[in-house]
Amino acid sequence: MIRLERDILAANNEVARRNRSRFAAEGVLALNLMSSPGAGKTTLLVETIAARPAPIAVIEGDQQTSLDAERIRSAGAPAYQVNTGHACHLDAAMVEHAASHLSLPHGGILFIENVGNLVCPAAFDLGEAERVVLVSVTEGDDKPLKYPDIFHAASLVVITKIDLLPHVRFDPDACLERARRLNPAVETLMLSATTGKGLDRWLAWLAGARQGLPASANAGS
Amino acid sequence: MIRLERDILAANNEVARRNRSRFAAEGVLALNLMSSPGAGKTTLLVETIAARPAPIAVIEGDQQTSLDAERIRSAGAPAYQVNTGHACHLDAAMVEHAASHLSLPHGGILFIENVGNLVCPAAFDLGEAERVVLVSVTEGDDKPLKYPDIFHAASLVVITKIDLLPHVRFDPDACLERARRLNPAVETLMLSATTGKGLDRWLAWLAGARQGLPASANAGS
Repeated sequence: MIRLERDILAANNEVARRNRSRFAAEGVLALNLMSSPGAGKTTLLVETIAARPAPIAVIEGDQQTSLDAERIRSAGAPAYQVNTGHACHLDAAMVEHAASHLSLPHGGILFIENVGNLVCPAAFDLGEAERVVLVSVTEGDDKPLKYPDIFHAASLVVITKIDLLPHVRFDPDACLERARRLNPAVETLMLSATTGKGLDRWLAWLAGARQGLPASANAGS
Repeated sequence: MIRLERDILAANNEVARRNRSRFAAEGVLALNLMSSPGAGKTTLLVETIAARPAPIAVIEGDQQTSLDAERIRSAGAPAYQVNTGHACHLDAAMVEHAASHLSLPHGGILFIENVGNLVCPAAFDLGEAERVVLVSVTEGDDKPLKYPDIFHAASLVVITKIDLLPHVRFDPDACLERARRLNPAVETLMLSATTGKGLDRWLAWLAGARQGLPASANAGS
């Protein structure tokens, strides 16, 4: 089984390299968005599209339905929906296929919204430039401890739904401290896509990432 | 790959049958609790243990940490923590191993808290009598559509964190209607482990399940 897993990941990495070359050649910043189901990935994308920070296209991963791609298209950006069936994560071949059906946003951002899952998406390189992990304040501040792989590989951790902080037990500092213990270089920010609070820092992070600035120049907690 | 998947599931089903026989022989009601990360499985178990409806033991599944088992023990029930490492679900062999390290609650309930994940746990029979799927109101009422396998196989869908309903956009009726469309026989209830609202119906459902009553006699939405 371990041998097989290695073979699958090696094959995936080969396709991921191809994706990464293509995205670089077309001047596209590819971001892999990962979180639990319902942490607010699509809602954040809808608000991001409304802010028009750059040309945007979206690849949507879900086990079933094209609901998310429809929301993205309604918000005004092209989207391609991948249904993974029984699979719990996107892989590089799915992204390669989806990218071939999308008009890539030259000089812009390709958001790849992974299947809602804090485990397996961590193992699959999609060819992205950066990985962004969202955690909502309703999920509990212990998530980095319980799902370390996904936090270990993140460039940015975004705490979402901070408008709900008064109603839940969630210590944002403790959550981010746990993420930093796993991944000292990780950047962090907090926002509410509903109220708009913190969206400016997200947009600033995107602007920095598009310019390929060193991570430390862009954002803080 | 399809052949291999079948082999894995066939091997799993064999162990699950063994587990099921053992639980039946010892008069233990085994319940497989599944949800997204942070939907409130452990919190519900803590409140359930406090209500003392029956002897209880708990098998906890997490990618890492023994935080949940510690919470269960603090609440007063024996618990065994399984760390799945890179795996995103429990399997029957993990449960068999864990059950051999726990004093099973004769005539009581063995809760098996799966890894927080709405995809892969659906494919693995653990030997449970019933499957319970939790969805929190912060996750979005589209979850049954997007993750159909797990709702299809559930005996009971529990909507959690209803104390947060005033602060989020979530239509409980729409969510439950979507679950019933996939699974017409599914039972449903709504609760808040924080305020205690709805816990009486959950305890009534558990009492019915312990008596092996036909599902329709126990609960409604």
